[in-house]
Amino acid sequence: MKMYGNWRSAAAFRVRVALNLKGIPYEEVFLDLDAGEQFKPDFLAINPQGAVPAFFDGDGPPLIQSLAILDYLEDIHPATPLLPSQPRERARARSLAQVVACDTHPLYVPRVRNFLMETYDLPRERMLGFVRHWMATGLKTLETRLTQEPGTGRYAQGDAVSHADLCLVSLWVGTGIFGVDTAPFPTVRRIAEDCLAQDAFARAHPLRQPGAPA
Amino acid sequence: MKMYGNWRSAAAFRVRVALNLKGIPYEEVFLDLDAGEQFKPDFLAINPQGAVPAFFDGDGPPLIQSLAILDYLEDIHPATPLLPSQPRERARARSLAQVVACDTHPLYVPRVRNFLMETYDLPRERMLGFVRHWMATGLKTLETRLTQEPGTGRYAQGDAVSHADLCLVSLWVGTGIFGVDTAPFPTVRRIAEDCLAQDAFARAHPLRQPGAPA
Repeated sequence: MKMYGNWRSAAAFRVRVALNLKGIPYEEVFLDLDAGEQFKPDFLAINPQGAVPAFFDGDGPPLIQSLAILDYLEDIHPATPLLPSQPRERARARSLAQVVACDTHPLYVPRVRNFLMETYDLPRERMLGFVRHWMATGLKTLETRLTQEPGTGRYAQGDAVSHADLCLVSLWVGTGIFGVDTAPFPTVRRIAEDCLAQDAFARAHPLRQPGAPA
Repeated sequence: MKMYGNWRSAAAFRVRVALNLKGIPYEEVFLDLDAGEQFKPDFLAINPQGAVPAFFDGDGPPLIQSLAILDYLEDIHPATPLLPSQPRERARARSLAQVVACDTHPLYVPRVRNFLMETYDLPRERMLGFVRHWMATGLKTLETRLTQEPGTGRYAQGDAVSHADLCLVSLWVGTGIFGVDTAPFPTVRRIAEDCLAQDAFARAHPLRQPGAPA
């Protein structure tokens, strides 16, 4: 398996963790998104959308969208499941993952940050205010649900790592990059730190990938 | 089954279509989001997040997030599948659905529109420009993929309706509400119009729900 990614991509991070947890060997090619490598002809011939992560299992076409790739890995490699077997628990794990991957992450991806600064002429600090607001909103939703809903265990859903944790940790790591106050979110912190102490998460950490700042 | 929704919610629309296609009887309670009914104590006792759609299959807790609810319906009611059986095709259908539900819809939900106008003091027309930009971006991604990728058939993935179509149609209907130029997206139009001519979609249409403008 082969993935085109980037050190900073929260979506690529989730997929790396799943591959590590399932013990699936893979190669990752790191694109320099700041230099626009994703829009150069060489990469557009590989993925016409110019987006990472782009995931290949053998011959193309590329699989894209991190949640769809996570589900694909469940389908083809059901050993070491990353979703519960019970439908209600599966739905809860997925919905927690989607609080991050649908409601939160799309609001702070590079294309949105660039749009606010370049097309809407917002100063950098206002753009960062937008990012921090939506990150904090996502964290607050997670914290509220994790403390109020009976399904929470050692991890976001029960006592086994699921897609919910992969997404939670990908948001948590972003709070450091963007300077979000995480004090109000102790349950999110507890789960994120538990996960990040594990090898499959630690090896996948954005700051441990090629191209990341030292 | 019982769902708390709203005529305008693209997410509730997707779930209504899935329930109709699967022939699952349900009751929908329509909240007046403009009047803030979702934040009143009566509803917060039902769903502490104050969000729709909130879906109940028997006793609580509520299931939330439209894609998680769609997957739950697949799990409990696999007859009339709304995802392909092959992993690669499933992944493609999911990724097309996520172009809408992750990359596009979260950028134009009420809380983002309100934030831009109320917290960032953007005039209404600038807020609408933001919404139209991201709707058009999502439509362009769909159009490009649907025309370039071999998996497209009568529907977004092959010749059977899938989650990809439910999400595509939910975005398409929004273009009318927000005034997006849809001329550059003929393939999206073809699929949306094909779906909307079918009873399961037509009955679920936002403008046919209680509370919608005449």
